[in-house]
Amino acid sequence: MNGYIGKILRVNLTLGKSQAEALKPKLAEQFVGGRGLAAKLLSTETAPGIDPLSPENKLIIMTSPLTGTITPSTPKFVITTKSPLTKIYGFTMISGFFAQALKAAGYDGIIIEGVAAEPKYLWINNGKAELKKAGHIWGLTTADSQTLVKDEIGVQDAEIAVIGPAGEGRVPIASVIVGKRAGGRCGVGAVFGSKRLKAIAVHGSKEVTVNNPDKLREIVGEMIKAIREKSPTKDNYPKYGTTFFVGTTNHLGVFPACNFQCSGTYDKSSKIDEMRFRDHVIRDSACPRCPIVCEKISAVKEGPYAPTSVQGPQYETIWALGAQCGVDRFDAIIAANRLCNDLGLDTISAGNAIGFAMECYEKGLLQSPDLELRFGQHEVLLPLIKQMAYGEGIGKILADGVRSAAEQIGHGAENFAMHVKGLELPAYDPRALPGMGLAYATASRGGCHLRAWTITDELIGSYKLYSTEGRAELVSRIQNVRAFIDSSGMCIFAMRAIPFDLLVEAVSAVTDFDYKGGNAVKVGERIYNVERILHTREGISRKGDVLPKRFFEEALPTGPHKGQKLSQNSFEKMKDGYYAIRGWDLATGSPTDIKLKELGLETD
Amino acid sequence: MNGYIGKILRVNLTLGKSQAEALKPKLAEQFVGGRGLAAKLLSTETAPGIDPLSPENKLIIMTSPLTGTITPSTPKFVITTKSPLTKIYGFTMISGFFAQALKAAGYDGIIIEGVAAEPKYLWINNGKAELKKAGHIWGLTTADSQTLVKDEIGVQDAEIAVIGPAGEGRVPIASVIVGKRAGGRCGVGAVFGSKRLKAIAVHGSKEVTVNNPDKLREIVGEMIKAIREKSPTKDNYPKYGTTFFVGTTNHLGVFPACNFQCSGTYDKSSKIDEMRFRDHVIRDSACPRCPIVCEKISAVKEGPYAPTSVQGPQYETIWALGAQCGVDRFDAIIAANRLCNDLGLDTISAGNAIGFAMECYEKGLLQSPDLELRFGQHEVLLPLIKQMAYGEGIGKILADGVRSAAEQIGHGAENFAMHVKGLELPAYDPRALPGMGLAYATASRGGCHLRAWTITDELIGSYKLYSTEGRAELVSRIQNVRAFIDSSGMCIFAMRAIPFDLLVEAVSAVTDFDYKGGNAVKVGERIYNVERILHTREGISRKGDVLPKRFFEEALPTGPHKGQKLSQNSFEKMKDGYYAIRGWDLATGSPTDIKLKELGLETD
Repeated sequence: MNGYIGKILRVNLTLGKSQAEALKPKLAEQFVGGRGLAAKLLSTETAPGIDPLSPENKLIIMTSPLTGTITPSTPKFVITTKSPLTKIYGFTMISGFFAQALKAAGYDGIIIEGVAAEPKYLWINNGKAELKKAGHIWGLTTADSQTLVKDEIGVQDAEIAVIGPAGEGRVPIASVIVGKRAGGRCGVGAVFGSKRLKAIAVHGSKEVTVNNPDKLREIVGEMIKAIREKSPTKDNYPKYGTTFFVGTTNHLGVFPACNFQCSGTYDKSSKIDEMRFRDHVIRDSACPRCPIVCEKISAVKEGPYAPTSVQGPQYETIWALGAQCGVDRFDAIIAANRLCNDLGLDTISAGNAIGFAMECYEKGLLQSPDLELRFGQHEVLLPLIKQMAYGEGIGKILADGVRSAAEQIGHGAENFAMHVKGLELPAYDPRALPGMGLAYATASRGGCHLRAWTITDELIGSYKLYSTEGRAELVSRIQNVRAFIDSSGMCIFAMRAIPFDLLVEAVSAVTDFDYKGGNAVKVGERIYNVERILHTREGISRKGDVLPKRFFEEALPTGPHKGQKLSQNSFEKMKDGYYAIRGWDLATGSPTDIKLKELGLETD
Repeated sequence: MNGYIGKILRVNLTLGKSQAEALKPKLAEQFVGGRGLAAKLLSTETAPGIDPLSPENKLIIMTSPLTGTITPSTPKFVITTKSPLTKIYGFTMISGFFAQALKAAGYDGIIIEGVAAEPKYLWINNGKAELKKAGHIWGLTTADSQTLVKDEIGVQDAEIAVIGPAGEGRVPIASVIVGKRAGGRCGVGAVFGSKRLKAIAVHGSKEVTVNNPDKLREIVGEMIKAIREKSPTKDNYPKYGTTFFVGTTNHLGVFPACNFQCSGTYDKSSKIDEMRFRDHVIRDSACPRCPIVCEKISAVKEGPYAPTSVQGPQYETIWALGAQCGVDRFDAIIAANRLCNDLGLDTISAGNAIGFAMECYEKGLLQSPDLELRFGQHEVLLPLIKQMAYGEGIGKILADGVRSAAEQIGHGAENFAMHVKGLELPAYDPRALPGMGLAYATASRGGCHLRAWTITDELIGSYKLYSTEGRAELVSRIQNVRAFIDSSGMCIFAMRAIPFDLLVEAVSAVTDFDYKGGNAVKVGERIYNVERILHTREGISRKGDVLPKRFFEEALPTGPHKGQKLSQNSFEKMKDGYYAIRGWDLATGSPTDIKLKELGLETD
């Protein structure tokens, strides 16, 4: 099976057993790999209504057909599960070296089920899988745990996915750390914790076969050329990583700040932008075979936060732990990022939770005996992150995510809990961007910018500013295209240079499947619909495709779009158009039978 | 040259060049390796009177003939230099995997001279040596630096010696961290820092030839048998590492506490003894081919110091950061040990400095605006360690070591600066142990217990309690024997089981040299005399072979030896005896010409 190892490892933690299963070619063809294949497997492997932290939930870890081939910038894999944060289908995607190591170890993916009686870690070495005791590293930082696992298995270049104390404590905003990277979103770390699975280590030397190596080589040449010739893959990404978005988004006037209270063009952003970031960068780092080299390692070498270093911080982290909390010190952000990684907390959700707590505190809804939770108080970041990771003090409430925290706090706190479907929002204020608002409302894992990112189309492209015109089509199209990209293993940053058709050709050249001529977008649509079914079967309907009130009631206070807010009426009309394009029922938001049949999903 | 690679790498940092030089067989035979050979090389490579932090000082890194052979428990190597702490010859010995990796990389040792114009690290891979830029990791923790160096050289199983911010800042009590172990004593880390040498990474696959492999195999069998059959290598070391000394030393009534003010049987020791240590142990760790497995990794998984872990703490560290500061919390000690390692500070000297500061503070000699420096205040450990590492606040004074700190503080502070020749004392109170007092006073690097350890002989053996009788002979004999052991690469813990003659046979079987029939002790004596010459040429005389006043003026306050103190008169008489046995001039303490000739050291 070209492009695939053809095997999935099923690990039952309750029984303490694992076995290899064949990956079905039909399934691979229909859902490609990664995000798509994992969503499909979760839909068949789990029933609706289960408790995300129960043994019935599963973790689906999946690589893609491009993983481990010569195709550049294809490091992505997915961890998919029912999220303890959003209580619906969720997933997190991670770059780095783990995905190719997993394939080299002999598997396209892993299905983890049940719950271990005591802490374990999974060690997969060239086909052989072992569950090893992890009680000794349970409670340790993700960094220390990785070192100890490597020492124990005696393979220093193993790739390791691991949770920290936050995941162990089933904190709903817990991340999984993979090497120096984070799989942050949807609380996947808590599901690891609920299964008493501390880590997964992988290593191997198996190779992936490719259907048409000559064709692939030719395509790869074109891809590399495109990456090297086009912006931002030739300039901004290599120089600043994702941090150039601080300057760009602020310049475009859609940069959120202080829990979205002072969004637009944020006055403190120059202290935490890509220029200041460069002052802290000490080294570049790249995913396998990626000519972009967008990853940066930054450090703090003096002052109260020294010495520390972290891979990152990414744009989203700078915003969440910085602007969203009114914090304008890069050293504090780097230290907070590192602490989130060490303890295994998602930086976006953690930053949002702190910003939310600050607003609650300033508005008198939240008491804090030991910490003065005012915007700009960088001193509270580290203590609050620790409290959240351990579920102590007010951290216990905040670590449940802002939706749940608002319910617990009451008194109208839900009005400034900035989330969609329970997932804390990322760093683009949608009040001047109806399309981005729609993208958030309909993203397949809740408040997420990565399923459809419409910023340049809406602000720089030919779309009419502030209007909802064409947004339904724009958002659904991008969602479908990105679903295919995410399932191929390709990084979306590289896709800012690589034409989509070239990616499709690459996947076709690697596999035995023909995705050309519009097939790929159709596959993307199929994936998006499988994800939608995962939502609707849990009771998500049109009523769940909503945005925080603030975007409709409070106008942007600063910047070029000052005064803009979304209109509830237009938003609902835009949704009508979106459901119509999608072939989803206007009332329920569920895919219609006709659509399901069209996509070959009748039985789902 | 059996037992040796036969090559030393000379690295001139000023010129940015390195070259291999032949190791002279005659020198190897006369000084064996490790500590002995390095001392000899320092004596010929450097002139007296140089500033330890100047380019004229050198770092001599040396392995031993047993390193990398099948002989068990032979991980030791030495880093030798003129110490910025004691201002005389100093060295630190380190276990782990670095020594065998250096030999496998193609060198018995490294001589580092000059000073680099900008931060560098040395990368030695299978004979090839490179100086690489280290500006990006300058300022980072020792742990982060090791990770970054491994990523950069692309060899995850390289062994790395590295300094932290303390060494970079030339702090006189700075250590060198090697993997997870510390080369703590004598401020060797500051010499790395003065040369702008951040790290040394080594990796290779060369093998060491052995003169008589059959004979060695036979000896190794006997050694392993002895280690497995005898106490404490068969029981206490494997179970508790060195921490069983807390209970033992306390039971024996010679456990120091609170800067030696409440020594004897310390009332809080049960909270920091080997039983409590076991509560924190998460994993065993061993040096290459060592059946003892004395190294333990401990962790803190709850409370204010969680999460953290460290390889250790060793007995000396538990004492220095614990009892010596009146601290009885294991979590605080583990966290303080980890911070010392991350920042690159010697735990023994750092703990002594804090204990000293506490006494000064309690006696009103030292002001501290932000920290209440009272004995037992565990909260001050981490802030003070950070202040010492960065030379900030009162940390700036303390990090110079207690001798210099006392001079700066004045008002009689020197009366409770617990050091010999500027090196802070270890964890045995000598007031009931005249022999241990003599060992401290004449140890070849200042206040050190490892050159001659007389505890069991004096307290359990046939020696007359509290008397100086036979101590001169005892101490000088152990010093000579240990000089040979330390130069062979063998660990002194294993030597509690292995008969000395068996070690001598092993070194003879590995090399082309015959050390049998008393030759080895003579070699040890030669080494001890070369070390003495390194001292005397810097002005050290009989007057320098002294102990802190406290041991003569204040009696042991608790325990079975309560009321004991040393007598100045007896002590000086014991020294007379010692110099006589050594063949050292009674007035100057210098080796006589006759002695030098006898040892073949006429030209030194």
